[in-house]
Amino acid sequence: MGERTYYLDHAAATPCDERVIAAMAPFWAETFYNPSAGYEGGRMARQALENARVTCSRILGAKPYEIVFTAGATESVHIALGGVLAGGGHAVVSAVEHAAVQAAVASYAFTVAHVDGRGYVTPEAVAAAVNDETVVVSVALADNEFGTVQPVAEIARRLERIRNDRRTRGVVTPLYLHSDGSQAAISLDMKVSRLGVDMLTLNAAKCYGPKQVGLLWLGSQVRLRPFLSGGGQERGLRSGTENVAGAAGIATAFELVQGARHSENERLAVMRTELIGRLSAAVPDMVVDGHPKKHLPGHIHIHLAGLDAERVVFRLSDEGIYCATGAACAANKQTRSLSLEAVGMSPAEADGSLRLTLGHLNKLEDIPYVAGRIAEAIAKERGL
Amino acid sequence: MGERTYYLDHAAATPCDERVIAAMAPFWAETFYNPSAGYEGGRMARQALENARVTCSRILGAKPYEIVFTAGATESVHIALGGVLAGGGHAVVSAVEHAAVQAAVASYAFTVAHVDGRGYVTPEAVAAAVNDETVVVSVALADNEFGTVQPVAEIARRLERIRNDRRTRGVVTPLYLHSDGSQAAISLDMKVSRLGVDMLTLNAAKCYGPKQVGLLWLGSQVRLRPFLSGGGQERGLRSGTENVAGAAGIATAFELVQGARHSENERLAVMRTELIGRLSAAVPDMVVDGHPKKHLPGHIHIHLAGLDAERVVFRLSDEGIYCATGAACAANKQTRSLSLEAVGMSPAEADGSLRLTLGHLNKLEDIPYVAGRIAEAIAKERGL
Repeated sequence: MGERTYYLDHAAATPCDERVIAAMAPFWAETFYNPSAGYEGGRMARQALENARVTCSRILGAKPYEIVFTAGATESVHIALGGVLAGGGHAVVSAVEHAAVQAAVASYAFTVAHVDGRGYVTPEAVAAAVNDETVVVSVALADNEFGTVQPVAEIARRLERIRNDRRTRGVVTPLYLHSDGSQAAISLDMKVSRLGVDMLTLNAAKCYGPKQVGLLWLGSQVRLRPFLSGGGQERGLRSGTENVAGAAGIATAFELVQGARHSENERLAVMRTELIGRLSAAVPDMVVDGHPKKHLPGHIHIHLAGLDAERVVFRLSDEGIYCATGAACAANKQTRSLSLEAVGMSPAEADGSLRLTLGHLNKLEDIPYVAGRIAEAIAKERGL
Repeated sequence: MGERTYYLDHAAATPCDERVIAAMAPFWAETFYNPSAGYEGGRMARQALENARVTCSRILGAKPYEIVFTAGATESVHIALGGVLAGGGHAVVSAVEHAAVQAAVASYAFTVAHVDGRGYVTPEAVAAAVNDETVVVSVALADNEFGTVQPVAEIARRLERIRNDRRTRGVVTPLYLHSDGSQAAISLDMKVSRLGVDMLTLNAAKCYGPKQVGLLWLGSQVRLRPFLSGGGQERGLRSGTENVAGAAGIATAFELVQGARHSENERLAVMRTELIGRLSAAVPDMVVDGHPKKHLPGHIHIHLAGLDAERVVFRLSDEGIYCATGAACAANKQTRSLSLEAVGMSPAEADGSLRLTLGHLNKLEDIPYVAGRIAEAIAKERGL
């Protein structure tokens, strides 16, 4: 090692921002106290935790007490969806949800809302999947495979019509909209009132913050059964001594990415256009997946039917270029991402998929080199 | 602030050891990669995770694949107990278990095994609570209120007789022994074969490691339903991108405390004797709770009926002495610890309880001063 690397997998993991590391530092060995303790040290830890909550709530345009700190997005999703569904009822999830969302509803009644070939789910497709037993709908702000940005605010409005209709018919079943904002929080506006969601999951690990730190925003109308019960921390929804370092970390990370998102989105968009342009020129039969307009600014998904994308990833790794075959969150790499099937890809297309996700570690000046090496690796792999 | 503080609440939280902070450091912004990624960086993260697993397994005398890294003890307990009980059956828990254990069994059939006035649970009390439906028994190695060390190995042998008896009668229900080692890991031998347990929970936050980092050791005979499902990480039992920094942190923390436990136990025992001796001399009617012999070396629990211990804690906080009224893990301080009731304390005795837990931050030379201030605060509070 020691050679220069080019990281194109920001959707799988992001390095902690130095300012995030600094924000966490006081809580390892100095203000390490248990926030439930009655003495001054405990109150200092509690104050730091609540400061982090205020920061997060301000960015979401929400109330501090609506924020539940969790140990990552998988946990947030289970607290949200499991917490609603434990009371009974049916769920609707989009066909391109993260494996955690799919798993959280798997043991309950659920319907998959179909996506189009671009990984886009329409409000109509969601509404068609909702029935009178539906208590929760989960659609990510943007998915982790294609980076397609979903029309969550429109879905929220469509669900509001369904709620009104239920009311007139005397159906009292609640209907909540949960959204996984893990991939989107670096790029999109996260004001919950504009999104129209009832619950929102965020993940520090995708925002240049620490891993296994997340949050769940819960509108005050939401009633959940506790998931991780015990000491009663985080409103009883996530028991366990609070991770104050993590809370300070996610608050700082979230504040930094949201504060810089307009300029960073522009920077990412320029790099994305440049990288796609160069790759398309070098590999003319390459197909760019996802939505041509509604996509995360630094997210690229391409495929070439018949390519062994896994071998391309290994080849590129040898040259210090790090990219993914597909959603790297699936620990079991023998299984294809369900998202690829959901957009109608054949096995040969799915296995020929590459995901290139740009972020802080990329510079425009590196793109020509990176594009050249990727095109070369593809050509070699195809025996051209 | 800025004045010197004296920390006597190591059972509630421990500061991260500097070597733990150093062990986590490379994984924030350098080897930050997703361990599921196929490129060299991902493999480096995976290697670090597996190295941490090997370290932990060696200390437990176990196999690396038997270690599941979790986001803290509350999560470990839910994965273990919920994972067994989701398949049906009955649980037995001691009356001095942590709130997380009590909560994890609360929605299932369970029986509480009674403790004596010292917070000690006998193998006979456990066996008496077991019936043919019992699938899991949970007894902490030492409880967090009194620091009483439980006869877990003897309980294990008693359960083995029950298993043998079941076998001869053709009863095929499995019977697992889970133990929460959170409080004990700094002091006791943690070899799982000597303990005789089937599942063991550990908590980095009580071992001079990071908060919301834990592990669950699972004997290969144990069959669990997945609790946090999704990407399938950690054998499918704890999905979510792995917290490599946390894993390196718990492995280092656990290695350090276990490596130093004999000398540290001696040091703690000397301080404990000194502190109890001085307090008893100054406050002759003070009662020392817990087991006179089988206790954690740095753990002190005392009570004075009629004392307002909460006010004593506040008084002492003003003088920079940090101690607890009872188990600080309970976020809701309006409720009394169930452990205090379990040993037969009256409300006046329970409310007059102080917990003083020694650790790295204490020095023998400070004990006379600390004892003096505590005795003084008690005297003032009693109007003496």
